[in-house]
Amino acid sequence: MSKTPRKSSKSEGLQLGRAVEWPDTPERAKLDRVPNPQADTNYVVRFTAPEFTSLCPITGQPDFAHLVIDYVPGQWLLESKSLKLYVASFRNHGAFHEDCTVAIGKRISSEIKPKWLRIGGYWYPRGGIPIDVFWQTGRLPKGMWVPEQGVAPYRGRG
Amino acid sequence: MSKTPRKSSKSEGLQLGRAVEWPDTPERAKLDRVPNPQADTNYVVRFTAPEFTSLCPITGQPDFAHLVIDYVPGQWLLESKSLKLYVASFRNHGAFHEDCTVAIGKRISSEIKPKWLRIGGYWYPRGGIPIDVFWQTGRLPKGMWVPEQGVAPYRGRG
Amino acid sequence: MSKTPRKSSKSEGLQLGRAVEWPDTPERAKLDRVPNPQADTNYVVRFTAPEFTSLCPITGQPDFAHLVIDYVPGQWLLESKSLKLYVASFRNHGAFHEDCTVAIGKRISSEIKPKWLRIGGYWYPRGGIPIDVFWQTGRLPKGMWVPEQGVAPYRGRG
Amino acid sequence: MSKTPRKSSKSEGLQLGRAVEWPDTPERAKLDRVPNPQADTNYVVRFTAPEFTSLCPITGQPDFAHLVIDYVPGQWLLESKSLKLYVASFRNHGAFHEDCTVAIGKRISSEIKPKWLRIGGYWYPRGGIPIDVFWQTGRLPKGMWVPEQGVAPYRGRG
Amino acid sequence: MSKTPRKSSKSEGLQLGRAVEWPDTPERAKLDRVPNPQADTNYVVRFTAPEFTSLCPITGQPDFAHLVIDYVPGQWLLESKSLKLYVASFRNHGAFHEDCTVAIGKRISSEIKPKWLRIGGYWYPRGGIPIDVFWQTGRLPKGMWVPEQGVAPYRGRG
Amino acid sequence: MSKTPRKSSKSEGLQLGRAVEWPDTPERAKLDRVPNPQADTNYVVRFTAPEFTSLCPITGQPDFAHLVIDYVPGQWLLESKSLKLYVASFRNHGAFHEDCTVAIGKRISSEIKPKWLRIGGYWYPRGGIPIDVFWQTGRLPKGMWVPEQGVAPYRGRG
Amino acid sequence: MSKTPRKSSKSEGLQLGRAVEWPDTPERAKLDRVPNPQADTNYVVRFTAPEFTSLCPITGQPDFAHLVIDYVPGQWLLESKSLKLYVASFRNHGAFHEDCTVAIGKRISSEIKPKWLRIGGYWYPRGGIPIDVFWQTGRLPKGMWVPEQGVAPYRGRG
Amino acid sequence: MSKTPRKSSKSEGLQLGRAVEWPDTPERAKLDRVPNPQADTNYVVRFTAPEFTSLCPITGQPDFAHLVIDYVPGQWLLESKSLKLYVASFRNHGAFHEDCTVAIGKRISSEIKPKWLRIGGYWYPRGGIPIDVFWQTGRLPKGMWVPEQGVAPYRGRG
Amino acid sequence: MSKTPRKSSKSEGLQLGRAVEWPDTPERAKLDRVPNPQADTNYVVRFTAPEFTSLCPITGQPDFAHLVIDYVPGQWLLESKSLKLYVASFRNHGAFHEDCTVAIGKRISSEIKPKWLRIGGYWYPRGGIPIDVFWQTGRLPKGMWVPEQGVAPYRGRG
Amino acid sequence: MSKTPRKSSKSEGLQLGRAVEWPDTPERAKLDRVPNPQADTNYVVRFTAPEFTSLCPITGQPDFAHLVIDYVPGQWLLESKSLKLYVASFRNHGAFHEDCTVAIGKRISSEIKPKWLRIGGYWYPRGGIPIDVFWQTGRLPKGMWVPEQGVAPYRGRG
Ligand SMILES: [Ca+2]
Ligand SMILES: [Ca+2]
Ligand SMILES: [Ca+2]
Ligand SMILES: [Ca+2]
Ligand SMILES: [Ca+2]
Ligand SMILES: [Ca+2]
Ligand SMILES: [Ca+2]
Ligand SMILES: [Ca+2]
Ligand SMILES: [Ca+2]
Ligand SMILES: [Ca+2]
Ligand SMILES: [Ca+2]
Ligand SMILES: [Ca+2]
Ligand SMILES: [Ca+2]
Ligand SMILES: [Ca+2]
Ligand SMILES: [Ca+2]
Ligand SMILES: [Ca+2]
Repeated sequence: MSKTPRKSSKSEGLQLGRAVEWPDTPERAKLDRVPNPQADTNYVVRFTAPEFTSLCPITGQPDFAHLVIDYVPGQWLLESKSLKLYVASFRNHGAFHEDCTVAIGKRISSEIKPKWLRIGGYWYPRGGIPIDVFWQTGRLPKGMWVPEQGVAPYRGRG
Repeated sequence: MSKTPRKSSKSEGLQLGRAVEWPDTPERAKLDRVPNPQADTNYVVRFTAPEFTSLCPITGQPDFAHLVIDYVPGQWLLESKSLKLYVASFRNHGAFHEDCTVAIGKRISSEIKPKWLRIGGYWYPRGGIPIDVFWQTGRLPKGMWVPEQGVAPYRGRG
Repeated sequence: MSKTPRKSSKSEGLQLGRAVEWPDTPERAKLDRVPNPQADTNYVVRFTAPEFTSLCPITGQPDFAHLVIDYVPGQWLLESKSLKLYVASFRNHGAFHEDCTVAIGKRISSEIKPKWLRIGGYWYPRGGIPIDVFWQTGRLPKGMWVPEQGVAPYRGRG
Repeated sequence: MSKTPRKSSKSEGLQLGRAVEWPDTPERAKLDRVPNPQADTNYVVRFTAPEFTSLCPITGQPDFAHLVIDYVPGQWLLESKSLKLYVASFRNHGAFHEDCTVAIGKRISSEIKPKWLRIGGYWYPRGGIPIDVFWQTGRLPKGMWVPEQGVAPYRGRG
Repeated sequence: MSKTPRKSSKSEGLQLGRAVEWPDTPERAKLDRVPNPQADTNYVVRFTAPEFTSLCPITGQPDFAHLVIDYVPGQWLLESKSLKLYVASFRNHGAFHEDCTVAIGKRISSEIKPKWLRIGGYWYPRGGIPIDVFWQTGRLPKGMWVPEQGVAPYRGRG
Repeated sequence: MSKTPRKSSKSEGLQLGRAVEWPDTPERAKLDRVPNPQADTNYVVRFTAPEFTSLCPITGQPDFAHLVIDYVPGQWLLESKSLKLYVASFRNHGAFHEDCTVAIGKRISSEIKPKWLRIGGYWYPRGGIPIDVFWQTGRLPKGMWVPEQGVAPYRGRG
Repeated sequence: MSKTPRKSSKSEGLQLGRAVEWPDTPERAKLDRVPNPQADTNYVVRFTAPEFTSLCPITGQPDFAHLVIDYVPGQWLLESKSLKLYVASFRNHGAFHEDCTVAIGKRISSEIKPKWLRIGGYWYPRGGIPIDVFWQTGRLPKGMWVPEQGVAPYRGRG
Repeated sequence: MSKTPRKSSKSEGLQLGRAVEWPDTPERAKLDRVPNPQADTNYVVRFTAPEFTSLCPITGQPDFAHLVIDYVPGQWLLESKSLKLYVASFRNHGAFHEDCTVAIGKRISSEIKPKWLRIGGYWYPRGGIPIDVFWQTGRLPKGMWVPEQGVAPYRGRG
Repeated sequence: MSKTPRKSSKSEGLQLGRAVEWPDTPERAKLDRVPNPQADTNYVVRFTAPEFTSLCPITGQPDFAHLVIDYVPGQWLLESKSLKLYVASFRNHGAFHEDCTVAIGKRISSEIKPKWLRIGGYWYPRGGIPIDVFWQTGRLPKGMWVPEQGVAPYRGRG
Repeated sequence: MSKTPRKSSKSEGLQLGRAVEWPDTPERAKLDRVPNPQADTNYVVRFTAPEFTSLCPITGQPDFAHLVIDYVPGQWLLESKSLKLYVASFRNHGAFHEDCTVAIGKRISSEIKPKWLRIGGYWYPRGGIPIDVFWQTGRLPKGMWVPEQGVAPYRGRG
């Protein structure tokens, strides 16, 4: 029999499939994990989040970024609605670009304990200068296939 | 004499060449294999399925993906109408993107026992965030030629 | 003598050049206008705001858009820091895409009374479907030169 | 005071902001309209739906399309979650491409009574041949600005 | 003295330079070979055949492909008019894409006994799913230069 | 006899061909004009200045722009080294983008009295928002040929 | 009988088909014309000369340009070897860009008396600022077909 | 009954379907026409001939061109094998680029009497300078759709 | 002192700098070599000849090719005017594509005795099928830098 | 204290910052070097000179090239104004393309003693055939990042 999707015991404890209050801080955001249904297998998951926004810790000005996260799951998958909410929770959070990017990588890493994870943060320019941040953790298992993230370089006007 | 195409004994047991009920679940979908007519030979077959759709296992919302599957056949080929039907059978099936993608890779793998197989699942964004899944199995025989899949990264608007 | 930039009487009443509290609502956001230093002249000003974000009025989910505003100033110019702040003030504001886009066009229009104004709002997809909103007001004076906005159509994945 | 988004009386009767059963037929799908908050104003709304799928009325095979809808609202706006659900309701509905495309245009038109509406349906190839369908109704008010839909022509392989 | 082209003994037995009946089956198609005029030399020959068509062996529906063949000739060259006729002979022939592609590779290989040969078959979508087939045989002599085939990935519409 | 280039009476009064102090304000910058050697003729001259920089009149922050100037000369040509110096003189000058752009257009216009002139100012983003300014003056003589300026729209990251 | 090309009376007086001294000044360069073999017909001839170089009349620095010349011939055609030599003759000639471009247009115009002629001079940047010059003369006969010159706008780096 | 293609009276007098001697001069080349099967309809036919070569009438040097011919047929269509032979007949023919291009246009025009015809001749550079020739004749019927020929402008290197 | 170019003893025996009869066969074409002025150095020279044409050895039909030749000179350089004449000498010569391409490579190789040479022959389609030929000889010295030839793959239409 | 730029002892002996006579031969051109301020670090410097011109040593005809020079500095940097003057000094210098390109590489190499240097010379076509010259010297230190020069291959017309 097919898995007919419906609100089931499977979603217990998940934010997915329920109306959820938007979290106002990263701390209050809950990252949900679900058991990796393919836990005996090494594969790569890539999330692309072009709608990231946070605040400058000093001036309070809004900052924007395009994030790309690649990981090889262990026992857990990162549930994507909870990622959406976590991403959204930075909306009123103040942190430097570098801090923000690496902190997201680390938080996800500590919650889902992937075999390997990398994050690329491609920030919109402030004062004319975009910042890109690249971080990885763990060890890419042998024989994995991981395409390039392929974000175009910034070029201003003209 | 040429092989004049007609409904022949060759198609016995195949869904190809017959009107077939669309399978409503992946379980009911039958993956047909045909003897690899070139079984003494190592070569690569690539399927591109830009018309994949399934349901979210928790909410029942429709999900969409662009799939690319590469394999080196052993004794069997995957028959493409049955792949089309299998792909279509996810239409009302609920599963996570990661599960779906790897499960498709594994199901094909277990049915046709390829020497090597990889699958790339490029999912349309949900909540603004697309997921890509990359998996491979077996060992690429030496001296094979396999071009890149080359799907463009997601970038939102503007 | 050159106009040495410094905090001067010219900036009286402006938010530019002062530390300003980020406005939390569009109503609290002050759109500053400065006397059009070229008020005897018909010309076009284009603002591009790829960093717009607001909230869904019903669900509270964050929305994102890329905005392009073209206008022919009359007696006033729209000051761009105040536009930045106004744009930022939608961060926790709930309104439909259509309303938001047209309201921004109208608010700017009523504050600076341009001879002509148009706004294109290119929204990131929600539920897989992006919305674009196109509005214009007033009458383009004869002999003006206005290039196309040229934002690419949305196409999902693959 | 800003419109703080929350579940309010405004959403009464809407499917937006509530868990909703996915409609299984276009007939059961409810197209929600909301009062046009800018009803005194002529402007254009564009929806892009790259995730459309229906069934062939004869064979039951799944069909796929990329839809673009442009309209000038009158008293009502088309609510986009209801459009998403309406679009999704064709999932198990059988109709010819031409019929489907024009029917969608007409249904929206009859529900929201726009001043003008056009729909472009760009269908994935079947038997190697994609079909595009173009329809419009009503009369574009003078002085409107409506960019091209800009979908690339199909070109097969090689 | 230069080799003035004319119908000569050189063309004896060739289909080139004569009106030829179009072969109706691959079996009836004659692949002509000419002595490799540079037989003491390792080099690569690439044929590109964007106009290949055959029939589905089961359903009789027409199939289309873009073929690219690379080989290192030994004693013989494949004559290109005979390749054109061979390619054309598949018009009413039924075979699977994989079989067709590899069979063409093998037939050419057995007739002209190249030192190495590879074929890429890029098939137009059937049921929305294109198949690509990649095969090579023999051993590329050391120090050869073979550029990529560079055919673009399939992407549907939108 | 050919015009052998050398420091000649022709350059009297020009900054061209001499070491020149960089002007620190636009007022101190001297725009040199030379007699239009083709004064009996209507033609268009286009300058492209991708290296423009000025200061915000209020905050003193540096601003950047890509400028394109088109004009039909009357009795005078604008000498390009003097334009370079004039452009450079804005380095420590404070003015709004709109003012700057139109003022440059007007200053050049008043110095060289062209039959027609237009200027496009494409400013780098400040606070994430680039401004483009489009102005023209005079009347394009009949039958002139003026290609589009063709500067690409801004799009942030991702 | 066909016109067998050979050195004939037709070339009397032409520089074409003979070894010619390179002219050192534009004055010494001879522009050859040949009778328009289609003189009863209006058509357009386009020359593209990407190898133009001259000297600054004041400083002696080398200047470079890409020239495009379009004309509708009257009784005469401009012979292209003589154009090559004329173009080369500016190598040690000093003149302003505007003068140079229009002078070339006029010289050609006065020698071959076209019905219409235009010249686009696209000069390499000096001090970071390129100059383009656009001139036309005469009157384009009705119903002519003249494609755009299509030279890309300058954009510096990034 | 279907129109079975065979050598019929319809081809009487045509070069198509017969072995034909290559014509050595344009005069000896025969342009075949066939009745326009859609003679009550205005439509456009485009031929592209990238393999044109002729000789310089003065020096005998080989010249090369890429030709594009567009026409609206009247009572006749130009048969394409005869065009191939006509094109090939210029191989040892000497004529200026301008003459050659317009003569081809005129010859075709006089043979098939189109309602409108245009020819673009894009010649390879000689002495660094390519020549393009654009000619049209007759009058384009109203409401016709004729895409640009879109041959890229020449740009040398870099 | 600079090397002032003039007709000098250096050109003795060369075809360069003299009026030369066009050779009618490859045998009559003379390939000139000049002493390698940098003979103590390993470097690469690339010739691109987009204007190659020959005849089919059997049918006499014209063939066209785009040739790219890379080599590392030893004691001699290939003089490019003589290459132009050699290339032109194939105009009425009949040979298969493969033969032609490799023969050109070998002839050059035997005349100038390079350390390494490769030739890519990219032939225009015949019967819808283009042929590319790739050959190299000698041994690329270590540490050389040789960019790809980068000729785009053929793709027919659409 | 900040490094205030002024004419200092640092510039002693440099041509930079002074009016300089244009050198008429490469021998008279002086290449200036400055101490590498990052001499303990391996990095790449790229110069692009699209405005190179010299003369043919045999015929005196003008030649044009686009040059790209990459190097890893050792103790010295190449000062760019002196490179501009050196490049300009070839204007009336006669040398073969191959000689010119390699000689420039060697001269720079001997003056600044880089760890590694390469030069690509992309020459404009003569007789329809462009020449590219590629040379490198020294040894690229491990782990360096050197992007391709990426100059497009020549393709004639069409
Ligand atoms: Ca910024
Ligand atoms: Ca720029
Ligand atoms: Ca979405
Ligand atoms: Ca954006
Ligand atoms: Ca897709
Ligand atoms: Ca299909
Ligand atoms: Ca194709
Ligand atoms: Ca799509
Ligand atoms: Ca983005
Ligand atoms: Ca150029
Ligand atoms: Ca510059
Ligand atoms: Ca260049
Ligand atoms: Ca070519
Ligand atoms: Ca063909
Ligand atoms: Ca040339
Ligand atoms: Ca061509």
